[in-house]
Amino acid sequence: MRHKSLNHTGCPIARSLEHVGEWWSILILRDAFTGASRFDDFQTNLGIAPNMLTRRLKTLVESGLLEKRRYSDKPARYEYVLTNKGREFRPVLWALIAWGNEHFAPEGESIMVIDAVTGERAEPVLVDRRTGRLLQAPEFRIAAGPAASERMRRRHAPFNERKPGAQS
Amino acid sequence: MRHKSLNHTGCPIARSLEHVGEWWSILILRDAFTGASRFDDFQTNLGIAPNMLTRRLKTLVESGLLEKRRYSDKPARYEYVLTNKGREFRPVLWALIAWGNEHFAPEGESIMVIDAVTGERAEPVLVDRRTGRLLQAPEFRIAAGPAASERMRRRHAPFNERKPGAQS
Repeated sequence: MRHKSLNHTGCPIARSLEHVGEWWSILILRDAFTGASRFDDFQTNLGIAPNMLTRRLKTLVESGLLEKRRYSDKPARYEYVLTNKGREFRPVLWALIAWGNEHFAPEGESIMVIDAVTGERAEPVLVDRRTGRLLQAPEFRIAAGPAASERMRRRHAPFNERKPGAQS
Repeated sequence: MRHKSLNHTGCPIARSLEHVGEWWSILILRDAFTGASRFDDFQTNLGIAPNMLTRRLKTLVESGLLEKRRYSDKPARYEYVLTNKGREFRPVLWALIAWGNEHFAPEGESIMVIDAVTGERAEPVLVDRRTGRLLQAPEFRIAAGPAASERMRRRHAPFNERKPGAQS
């Protein structure tokens, strides 16, 4: 994977993928959300090779998504706990669950988002925080923002420069 | 990447990642949303090696996220168009944009979601479609669903079996 070729675009999707784009990283975060924090937890859950797990955990710590904490002195043992940045990845995971359930779960849902008090099943949708409007096309679209590079502006027309042929 | 070890868990996140988990696949989808449809479009945008692009497009077509359509007979040329399943990946991408902007864009936003009519910037948040409530912890959580395997039920407690130590 060419990190450089992704990062220089400035695209927040590309940048996010640098930190969590590898499958294992997303699955490690998924497990952290459900209580896994120790090396052995992740290893048992994921069946991942130890050297790969070490590498992934290190990257997630460096990216600031997990914090490495010592929980035992003798022997020295560490746990990996979600940071604020890591916890804020939750909507992406839950959106992924909704999409996976919709399209890749012919036998029914094996996990779902529920109201923690009533147990009622929630249906995750993305809306605009202020207006509550459903974020869908063609009502909403992607546009170049204030920090867009020339390249990004060519690719994502700023407002009032609708790019012809964009799929909605 | 061990496909089998991911799929047999039944987890919709793991399953989704089988279809889109590779970075390039997500970036290809991103570009499809902004109007790319031909091999050369993707190649120019992404700077990806042709054989890698061919492979990624093939997987996305097989997964039903893109449809391959002939747009020229002589010479035979094809374009790749988002299917319904592919278009429904949009909330995941937009949630990723919001998260990336929040945490990895110190110089400001280079792309953002806007109202296509007014140009006003939207702030993507995940809510429950029926009640409009913000999907966040600890009010909401992940639970095993009706189709959960024994393994999934151990990992994600069904309602009323809160797993101790889950990070919220």
